Amino acid sequence: MNDSREIELVGHIIDSGIMEHVLDSILDMGGDFEILEFNVGKKKTDTSYARVRVNGTNSDNLDAIISTLHRHGARLIDSDDVTLVPAEGNRIVPKGFYSTTNYPTQVRINSEWINVQNIEMDCLIVVSADKKSACATPMSKLERGDLVVISEHGVKIQPPERSRSHEEFEFMCGSISSERPTVTTIRKIAKEILDTHKKGLKIALVGGPAIIHTGADSATASMIREGFIDILFAGNALATHDVEYNLYGTSLGMDIRTGELVSAGHKNHLYAISEIMRAGSLKKAVDNGVLKSGIMYECVKNDIPYVLAGSIRDDGPLPDVITDSIVAQDEMRRYIPEIGMVLMIATMLHSIAVGNCLPSYVLTVCVDINPSTLTKLMDRGSSQAIGVVSDAGAFFPMLLDQVHILLKNSE
Amino acid sequence: MNDSREIELVGHIIDSGIMEHVLDSILDMGGDFEILEFNVGKKKTDTSYARVRVNGTNSDNLDAIISTLHRHGARLIDSDDVTLVPAEGNRIVPKGFYSTTNYPTQVRINSEWINVQNIEMDCLIVVSADKKSACATPMSKLERGDLVVISEHGVKIQPPERSRSHEEFEFMCGSISSERPTVTTIRKIAKEILDTHKKGLKIALVGGPAIIHTGADSATASMIREGFIDILFAGNALATHDVEYNLYGTSLGMDIRTGELVSAGHKNHLYAISEIMRAGSLKKAVDNGVLKSGIMYECVKNDIPYVLAGSIRDDGPLPDVITDSIVAQDEMRRYIPEIGMVLMIATMLHSIAVGNCLPSYVLTVCVDINPSTLTKLMDRGSSQAIGVVSDAGAFFPMLLDQVHILLKNSE
Amino acid sequence: MNDSREIELVGHIIDSGIMEHVLDSILDMGGDFEILEFNVGKKKTDTSYARVRVNGTNSDNLDAIISTLHRHGARLIDSDDVTLVPAEGNRIVPKGFYSTTNYPTQVRINSEWINVQNIEMDCLIVVSADKKSACATPMSKLERGDLVVISEHGVKIQPPERSRSHEEFEFMCGSISSERPTVTTIRKIAKEILDTHKKGLKIALVGGPAIIHTGADSATASMIREGFIDILFAGNALATHDVEYNLYGTSLGMDIRTGELVSAGHKNHLYAISEIMRAGSLKKAVDNGVLKSGIMYECVKNDIPYVLAGSIRDDGPLPDVITDSIVAQDEMRRYIPEIGMVLMIATMLHSIAVGNCLPSYVLTVCVDINPSTLTKLMDRGSSQAIGVVSDAGAFFPMLLDQVHILLKNSE
Amino acid sequence: MNDSREIELVGHIIDSGIMEHVLDSILDMGGDFEILEFNVGKKKTDTSYARVRVNGTNSDNLDAIISTLHRHGARLIDSDDVTLVPAEGNRIVPKGFYSTTNYPTQVRINSEWINVQNIEMDCLIVVSADKKSACATPMSKLERGDLVVISEHGVKIQPPERSRSHEEFEFMCGSISSERPTVTTIRKIAKEILDTHKKGLKIALVGGPAIIHTGADSATASMIREGFIDILFAGNALATHDVEYNLYGTSLGMDIRTGELVSAGHKNHLYAISEIMRAGSLKKAVDNGVLKSGIMYECVKNDIPYVLAGSIRDDGPLPDVITDSIVAQDEMRRYIPEIGMVLMIATMLHSIAVGNCLPSYVLTVCVDINPSTLTKLMDRGSSQAIGVVSDAGAFFPMLLDQVHILLKNSE
Repeated sequence: MNDSREIELVGHIIDSGIMEHVLDSILDMGGDFEILEFNVGKKKTDTSYARVRVNGTNSDNLDAIISTLHRHGARLIDSDDVTLVPAEGNRIVPKGFYSTTNYPTQVRINSEWINVQNIEMDCLIVVSADKKSACATPMSKLERGDLVVISEHGVKIQPPERSRSHEEFEFMCGSISSERPTVTTIRKIAKEILDTHKKGLKIALVGGPAIIHTGADSATASMIREGFIDILFAGNALATHDVEYNLYGTSLGMDIRTGELVSAGHKNHLYAISEIMRAGSLKKAVDNGVLKSGIMYECVKNDIPYVLAGSIRDDGPLPDVITDSIVAQDEMRRYIPEIGMVLMIATMLHSIAVGNCLPSYVLTVCVDINPSTLTKLMDRGSSQAIGVVSDAGAFFPMLLDQVHILLKNSE
Repeated sequence: MNDSREIELVGHIIDSGIMEHVLDSILDMGGDFEILEFNVGKKKTDTSYARVRVNGTNSDNLDAIISTLHRHGARLIDSDDVTLVPAEGNRIVPKGFYSTTNYPTQVRINSEWINVQNIEMDCLIVVSADKKSACATPMSKLERGDLVVISEHGVKIQPPERSRSHEEFEFMCGSISSERPTVTTIRKIAKEILDTHKKGLKIALVGGPAIIHTGADSATASMIREGFIDILFAGNALATHDVEYNLYGTSLGMDIRTGELVSAGHKNHLYAISEIMRAGSLKKAVDNGVLKSGIMYECVKNDIPYVLAGSIRDDGPLPDVITDSIVAQDEMRRYIPEIGMVLMIATMLHSIAVGNCLPSYVLTVCVDINPSTLTKLMDRGSSQAIGVVSDAGAFFPMLLDQVHILLKNSE
Repeated sequence: MNDSREIELVGHIIDSGIMEHVLDSILDMGGDFEILEFNVGKKKTDTSYARVRVNGTNSDNLDAIISTLHRHGARLIDSDDVTLVPAEGNRIVPKGFYSTTNYPTQVRINSEWINVQNIEMDCLIVVSADKKSACATPMSKLERGDLVVISEHGVKIQPPERSRSHEEFEFMCGSISSERPTVTTIRKIAKEILDTHKKGLKIALVGGPAIIHTGADSATASMIREGFIDILFAGNALATHDVEYNLYGTSLGMDIRTGELVSAGHKNHLYAISEIMRAGSLKKAVDNGVLKSGIMYECVKNDIPYVLAGSIRDDGPLPDVITDSIVAQDEMRRYIPEIGMVLMIATMLHSIAVGNCLPSYVLTVCVDINPSTLTKLMDRGSSQAIGVVSDAGAFFPMLLDQVHILLKNSE
Repeated sequence: MNDSREIELVGHIIDSGIMEHVLDSILDMGGDFEILEFNVGKKKTDTSYARVRVNGTNSDNLDAIISTLHRHGARLIDSDDVTLVPAEGNRIVPKGFYSTTNYPTQVRINSEWINVQNIEMDCLIVVSADKKSACATPMSKLERGDLVVISEHGVKIQPPERSRSHEEFEFMCGSISSERPTVTTIRKIAKEILDTHKKGLKIALVGGPAIIHTGADSATASMIREGFIDILFAGNALATHDVEYNLYGTSLGMDIRTGELVSAGHKNHLYAISEIMRAGSLKKAVDNGVLKSGIMYECVKNDIPYVLAGSIRDDGPLPDVITDSIVAQDEMRRYIPEIGMVLMIATMLHSIAVGNCLPSYVLTVCVDINPSTLTKLMDRGSSQAIGVVSDAGAFFPMLLDQVHILLKNSE
């Protein structure tokens, strides 16, 4: 009877909850288990090892269980090379394909474990024709003949383990709270910004137009000018509102200094777009002196790349906006590998889009006045994110302050 | 046929929307009208006058229409003295009683118009036995034999008119927005605080425990110490969390400086209450040196009165908490007449309770991270309130800063 | 001195609040007024007429005031033909351009008033070269040489007037409430659906993927099959989840009949897309028998047009998705002129996108579990919308029931 | 050196996550561990056993760690009888008191383990003078001389273990989702209602006034009449709105059948209270025929006990309302021991109040349109609750339907 398989688990499998999730999942799915071997790390520096026989109610059930256990980090004892099947057409996934997690992943080819490049969730793994490399490939990029990994055989992932040392900020991962001390949380984010740069990694800002509405434009522009932001992901709205504010002092016609709607101010939005159209691009508008301050200005002046993705509700849009969503995704993905930290501020659409492409080990902080945005981000797989329920207009000036305080203290 | 009555309207009845609401209501309710006289104020300083015949489909319909028009400020032409009926029992309202608005109100007695004292919404008007005075009386205070005003006859109200001069902050009344510039809004609130004190009126703070959770305790305590808050309305939770934080550094067991839960910190909440129990009251705990800082400390030290109202979910509660809700309401009402401005921060229960007792002319600012709290407050009649969707932990430190900046600039 | 102009107002200008808004705006903007003539409609069927001299503090201020009054329906007495200026480049708006409202609009050309076609907010008005027609034109469609209307001269709009007869549903326009009787509200929506069809107008559904998650797929498919929906506007997510559910019983891997996550169910999402890729399109998948039920199936079977607009967070997307946001907007606009009612369910992105293109007289009902979505829709100009805070999974089955009950009762 | 202690863990300690939480907490708090013995249950029916030496950085640290481990279910090897200290005054807690969880709890007295009665969270354990019984005692009931348990010595708790068999509904515990299939969720709740009654346990309804506003009054009354609800916990608002609706057809003046505000309807609220005042109580109003239908009517007719707790924002209140919050809590606690399931609908205040008093094994379902209410309930310790983001007006009629369907199917 072949509805039984052996798996093994290695590492800090108890205190990281891996053992729990594995046994739980077997029971949840109607299976059964026998623990064949269990060497527990006696001290906190020791790793543990477990060998478990998994029984399914039938062979389909067993496959389903194994597939789930794999996602918790279990490996089949009898691991072999990956099975590869050529894609039968562009963007047509083979039956039984291996669907990626956002954890670091290796595949076994010719008896060697090689790293999967550009890991992101819900992709296929495509192995190069020479079988020397493997790459996580979104469905939209799958081409006829691509060698696609099938099933979990020969695939290993490394779910995040709790670090052995107590990390200051880590305890908040996966949490959302509107009941935390605001200044304390912001101080920790400021510290992570400096630490990320110390490690030589980049910081991306994913921002929505509320940054401008709520009066955080200049604090955000300062963050960019002073070098704390390395990449900007946004939409037409953020860029247009920023230009409108910096050309006319308004955001969708509201005077930011008074909070009042300005007569005929609603036109400023279209004038702002039009001025950039006339110049040809944001860069040209900066170069020819039309745009003299703000978030987009600082990006241009400081060579900070930006990806502005179009959406169905855009006015204009600005000439810099990539209106095709697949092209915009590709452009966004170009910058992902260098990123060590992402700040997502007041935009559900772009936050989820970027979250979809991030490996699990990128520190992700999402700030929104609406806790539902944070819940949705995490539900969609960015479970490593730290959710902060706050107001962009208060958050950014306070963050800039805290960064300055930390820098001063560290001098 | 008696289903027709004449009403008159006086004042800035066009640009304050009163004329619109009156005609609209007549149509909405199935009635009809004829405008008998209409002298429109030609210039902005002129008042207008209208006399309108109102027709109802029958006499009940006409009564219903007249009752509604009254609430928009219309007066019956043939106004006579109020009709009075003695209450048949304690807390038993007579049929057809006049139910108050929160607008300034006068009643006609012995052919003279006298002001109704302590106006608040949804009360009865009780006229004194000597018929020299009238007072808005909540149902819970109605006593057998009280002379209760029946119907709108002989009752005049003054709904708020748009002021002729453009007021900076006023345009926001009745609005809620998470898309306003945060710093700008806070600056306006700071200005209103100073202006209210210049007018010799008092400022009440209605606060929830999130003031402590979000790290705003010391900014709030400073506001009290520096004299910007004159009365505190809250519950057991705010006071207990404040004491817990100032005795042990935690709020419900979370260390406010680190945002982390402290081992056994959940006991601090009960210890905090117990320490005040032991002292006998907050005041005694301050006097004997147990409580040395925080919101409640500053209240005691600066003779700022506080009303702590009990609720069904309280632990303890503190000895200063008034556990009977009717007694607590009465105590709260004692302070209402002197108040010119109310800051409601992060508490739906107490905000609505205080809002219920406020006349319409008290400037009411409500700050909450959850826009639903603001909507509910306004839906329950506090339509003059200004709603700010923000985070107490960011709001209070920023408000204190802005008050300081304004004071410095005005020197 | 030229900082004074005469305007006139005609219609139910008092009870529709137009007179109030006009006088208010003048005062708000620092101007002054004199009412030169005011004939008030004495009875509810009579219209009123007012002639008002408006004074500004200077000529710029006067222009700003006049521009605002125009948007309330005021007309300049000395109205002349529109001023036209050719656009200097593609998508470059001329200085001083007239920015449209979503109200019915006319322009005066050669002394005749002609209707502006395809009115939608925040567009330019372009007059044809032969000056026989005028069309609201989004900035993205503006071409070099187009004749663009400048300023409010020669432009008339008709803001909505309160209808004279009491309409059942109308009182809710512009309101949001989670505190209304759910069944009552749904019954009214059902009635409007039948009434819209009686008038020969079409009904559009704008839907998000929560329709599937919350279990409303089959009720929605029934609505389409039974002819209550004429056009579908959505994104990749709704269509993909619908296909996934109808092929595999899951939505993003959750079994809709049990609410539980299915092992390896996360792959179903990609399989669903892949199956449609293989077929070539949704239509072909229906034709060749792959897709046999659901929302998209019913659209294909019943020749209900759909516009699926791409977004940056899409997986796949399906071959039917229009990935370029500007192309998708154009496609969406093709269907707008025939629409009399729009149901927006659980999607902020698509709701605002469609709302942007709708004339003010289209009945717009927006249902979302999150009141912020409704607030944002209205804040962005769709002020005629009726907001319902409810759950798609409860709403659609109850709506279908109510439609059936109404139909049965009317037999 | 005494900063090391041995603890033991027994049961399904791996798959219930207990082992993980224990080791994690030690590391989080700066401690260290050595696993001395670990017998793992090889099969799913076997229990595991672990003996662990815990090292703290000093004796205070060790105490803190042990205290935390205790709450995860760890027991000290060298367990002895509990330490008892008499309370020095009413409501004054002794230093180092044991603070209860909401898990089943035992204390060791005279070498025997006895169950703690009336377990609820954040209480003290008071042992009777004869040392024969122990009872969880809220601080407000603590009296001078009461024998209070100090520290975790001699105290054992049973945190919930994952049940070995796969329970249908259980997987949702501690979760909140607006993205679940509504009908499916409601069907499961219906099933739990029937199952709870089969087990001979009682079902409590904790309800807010939105039950009336949203039109769920009669479905809720049916639930009571048909015997599905055994106890009602609410406030003045639910009862008053129910009476208002059943006497006058309105709720806070809104006609529930049309959703429109009724002229002078705001008075109905006070009339409703007044009518009950006149009768003397809800029961008398039912007995003398004044109140003939609705939620409160069915409670009286069917001898369903209700506890109506007062709050600071009440009008009236009704004579049945317990205005003192401490008296109301006591009354509420009288009914807790018999309860097997609680439905909390649209009330944050009462839900948290009841949640505070419930043992962890009571099935708790909380339904609210606002996900923040659910988050707060769980954050305050009711972590076993199942949160459903839905609309009371849709939920109750659908729940009644599902109960009827299940009953019919089981016939």
